[in-house]
Amino acid sequence: MSEAQMTAGDLRGALADGPALPRSIVSMLDVTRPMLEHCFRMAALLEQAPRTSCAGVIAGRTMAVMFYQQSTRTRMSFEAAMLRVGGHVIGFADPATTRAVGFYEETLEDVVRFTAQMSDLLVLRHPETGSAARAAQCSPVPVVNAGDGYGEHPTQAMGDLYRIHKHFGRVDGLTVGIVGHLGWRAHRSLVMGLSLFGVRLLVLEPPGSSMPDDVAQLLRQRGTAVEMCGGIGEILARADLVTTLGVYHSNFHADFDDKANVASKQSTPTPDNYRITAQAVAQLGRPIAVLHIGPIADHIDRALDPMPQAHYFKQARDCVWLRCALLGLMLGRAP
Amino acid sequence: MSEAQMTAGDLRGALADGPALPRSIVSMLDVTRPMLEHCFRMAALLEQAPRTSCAGVIAGRTMAVMFYQQSTRTRMSFEAAMLRVGGHVIGFADPATTRAVGFYEETLEDVVRFTAQMSDLLVLRHPETGSAARAAQCSPVPVVNAGDGYGEHPTQAMGDLYRIHKHFGRVDGLTVGIVGHLGWRAHRSLVMGLSLFGVRLLVLEPPGSSMPDDVAQLLRQRGTAVEMCGGIGEILARADLVTTLGVYHSNFHADFDDKANVASKQSTPTPDNYRITAQAVAQLGRPIAVLHIGPIADHIDRALDPMPQAHYFKQARDCVWLRCALLGLMLGRAP
Amino acid sequence: MSEAQMTAGDLRGALADGPALPRSIVSMLDVTRPMLEHCFRMAALLEQAPRTSCAGVIAGRTMAVMFYQQSTRTRMSFEAAMLRVGGHVIGFADPATTRAVGFYEETLEDVVRFTAQMSDLLVLRHPETGSAARAAQCSPVPVVNAGDGYGEHPTQAMGDLYRIHKHFGRVDGLTVGIVGHLGWRAHRSLVMGLSLFGVRLLVLEPPGSSMPDDVAQLLRQRGTAVEMCGGIGEILARADLVTTLGVYHSNFHADFDDKANVASKQSTPTPDNYRITAQAVAQLGRPIAVLHIGPIADHIDRALDPMPQAHYFKQARDCVWLRCALLGLMLGRAP
Repeated sequence: MSEAQMTAGDLRGALADGPALPRSIVSMLDVTRPMLEHCFRMAALLEQAPRTSCAGVIAGRTMAVMFYQQSTRTRMSFEAAMLRVGGHVIGFADPATTRAVGFYEETLEDVVRFTAQMSDLLVLRHPETGSAARAAQCSPVPVVNAGDGYGEHPTQAMGDLYRIHKHFGRVDGLTVGIVGHLGWRAHRSLVMGLSLFGVRLLVLEPPGSSMPDDVAQLLRQRGTAVEMCGGIGEILARADLVTTLGVYHSNFHADFDDKANVASKQSTPTPDNYRITAQAVAQLGRPIAVLHIGPIADHIDRALDPMPQAHYFKQARDCVWLRCALLGLMLGRAP
Repeated sequence: MSEAQMTAGDLRGALADGPALPRSIVSMLDVTRPMLEHCFRMAALLEQAPRTSCAGVIAGRTMAVMFYQQSTRTRMSFEAAMLRVGGHVIGFADPATTRAVGFYEETLEDVVRFTAQMSDLLVLRHPETGSAARAAQCSPVPVVNAGDGYGEHPTQAMGDLYRIHKHFGRVDGLTVGIVGHLGWRAHRSLVMGLSLFGVRLLVLEPPGSSMPDDVAQLLRQRGTAVEMCGGIGEILARADLVTTLGVYHSNFHADFDDKANVASKQSTPTPDNYRITAQAVAQLGRPIAVLHIGPIADHIDRALDPMPQAHYFKQARDCVWLRCALLGLMLGRAP
Repeated sequence: MSEAQMTAGDLRGALADGPALPRSIVSMLDVTRPMLEHCFRMAALLEQAPRTSCAGVIAGRTMAVMFYQQSTRTRMSFEAAMLRVGGHVIGFADPATTRAVGFYEETLEDVVRFTAQMSDLLVLRHPETGSAARAAQCSPVPVVNAGDGYGEHPTQAMGDLYRIHKHFGRVDGLTVGIVGHLGWRAHRSLVMGLSLFGVRLLVLEPPGSSMPDDVAQLLRQRGTAVEMCGGIGEILARADLVTTLGVYHSNFHADFDDKANVASKQSTPTPDNYRITAQAVAQLGRPIAVLHIGPIADHIDRALDPMPQAHYFKQARDCVWLRCALLGLMLGRAP
């Protein structure tokens, strides 16, 4: 059967025809390679199926977004995905609209437990590392971690890997450059995900920063080849793809009111040795894919935008489809 | 016919097969006992019907949420309910996103009248007592009061009564403990609702506080048995169920910007004589139901959470189904 | 076929049976008279068709609202319209919930390009004049301008014209009074739209203010009859309809945090010579239509509200239907 003729029932059947995801997605450590590959297959299938079939995958299920930190992409991506597969969305984009802020300072656990009574799945972004694990622990419904402090951001990593898989047709065998601290949540999750495949990592940590112990240990355990690099040139010279969060980053523990976070903003531009320029990419004389999860600061030269090497916008699009698959697998598998 | 086989048409027929609700729900005084009992029946029916039938109850109608005060549960509960019965949701969770705040300071009446042009029903939370009545007065579409200052919160009371009815199989004959000031909006509405049944009320007002005149007068008129208690022990000893808002409470007149409200937060813990502890409940040697509308502060010992006596999470779940019934009755009755 | 029997397919067919709209709607200069008239026809058709047919016009398409400025009506109107024609809605009502505010200060262009990956159409309100054009330039999906600084607000004008057309059965031949500065975005767009018809404009600019050059030049080019008036009396004496934004206005460049804007609020009441009173309208002895896009300040005497001459609430309702037509034409035309 061609994908363009698939019904909602066919899609639900296909979802069931592969490994189940864990109840909650807190860490990339929860996700196995077969699960990831099933997500990739389903994302591709959903993208090619008629929109009306896609809208029948999840009937009458409700996702609650609980965003205690700012988000441009992740929240909208989850919402677009949930609506696209036929579900409903409730929740909050700003905790100041809830009782979590102000007189009551309602605990995360209570907001989780009460919100779970009104929904079938929670998507949580929160400034505290470990908050998603705490939520998953006390929630009667599945929890998806959409970023917890300096912890993880697993669905971002899954979406990124889907883009990589889609572009290269594989993940195995790729040489992957990573610029930025591997203790930043999206990077930590991505590296955990990459380590499920046979990749070589070229890592450029910010000046004075080094790979966190937990990441280093996992990579050793999984036998992933890692090289620490001294500059962006080394990465561009050898990588099939490079993803960067730059050298400076927002404080992941910051909540909406953290003026200190904004005040801490570095006016110093990213050092040249950490910037990806259009010229450097163009001069390579061989293909390379530049990924970025956004927001994009000065560590990517925006002259790169129209070049085929720039994958960040396609990446955001693929993340929606990956999340369609994820939500379908978590909520819409045929019984 | 079994509930599990009911179609959307069956559900619409069942909605029509009972007393109509008033056009707007501003106060529990607007709601009669037969209306309430029809809501309970419909809530149960909707919960047991297939989700797809439930989603066909309201076709293409739009609810607007207008929240001028913070809310964790009420707004999400209404939204989840409206989506579950097939409707759409628009509105605002923070008035600062509208013209009601800032240069124009658009009046409540105008926001109501304009929003009503774009929707079929308004759900209003507002810091001013009487605001919901004002809104219902000027709105061309039905208004549901989701909390007005120190006035009422009728749908919370309806949901609470549904939980009570569901758990005990009846409301008549129950002895109901209430901790907190009966002038707080959820308590006022609940007492008004309870007075439609043959209940005995055991009331524990905060230190120095007494029952508001309007509540006292209504209870006299309706012949409801009321005893003022001096401590939580008296209530636990005799009540079938107890609900509490504690001794301290957020200022219900506060809007989003009221820093004084937060600053007024009592650091003093709730006196023992007003706290419900897991130990006290466990030692009763007989069943009791502990309700709470949330947010839960220190007046409930959270060791109670996993005990069968704790009903607050189930209560939040039942409130969604009660609101499904309410919205169905207000917008989806078969012609 | 009667409108009440039209199916979603019939409606899509009707949408296709007329001139296409431009890809993006940035300015009323993008809209021709045949396009506008097709929008009017479609708005009327959608209003009269069954809601269930209306809901089938757009299947599975997603609109993203991107509101960098406060809005009571425009955002809710777009959302109500999109949901009514069967689409989905994502987005933000407050940029502080995104990465556009705070540490990253993500550029408008980036927020546009990323949001466009998750949606099929963007609706943008932004304090900078020209922002919608910038967005349309860089967006891979259509952009609708919902107000850009002191630029335009074309869909407001389209809705206003639909109300006028619906009430008078025509726009040609009408004498239209306009109170307020024609450089304010809704007025600029309205005058541009009116100039597509054979109207006579009676303009009352605020004291010390005059018509902007671009508007004056367009009106000359299009041969629109314009008279500058010295007071509201002249307009009421002769106009078939009058619309007003008063004499004072919010700073259209202000964003959410602009306290100066609120502080600049004029405590001076609108001069009598610029106010529309119920008495003056009643004494005319002939019909006149008073329009207002809201929020309504003291330049309209609210004793007018219940009088048949007051059109502002009907106008808000018609704006939803016009936007249903617009979204249908932009996203739901039969292939």
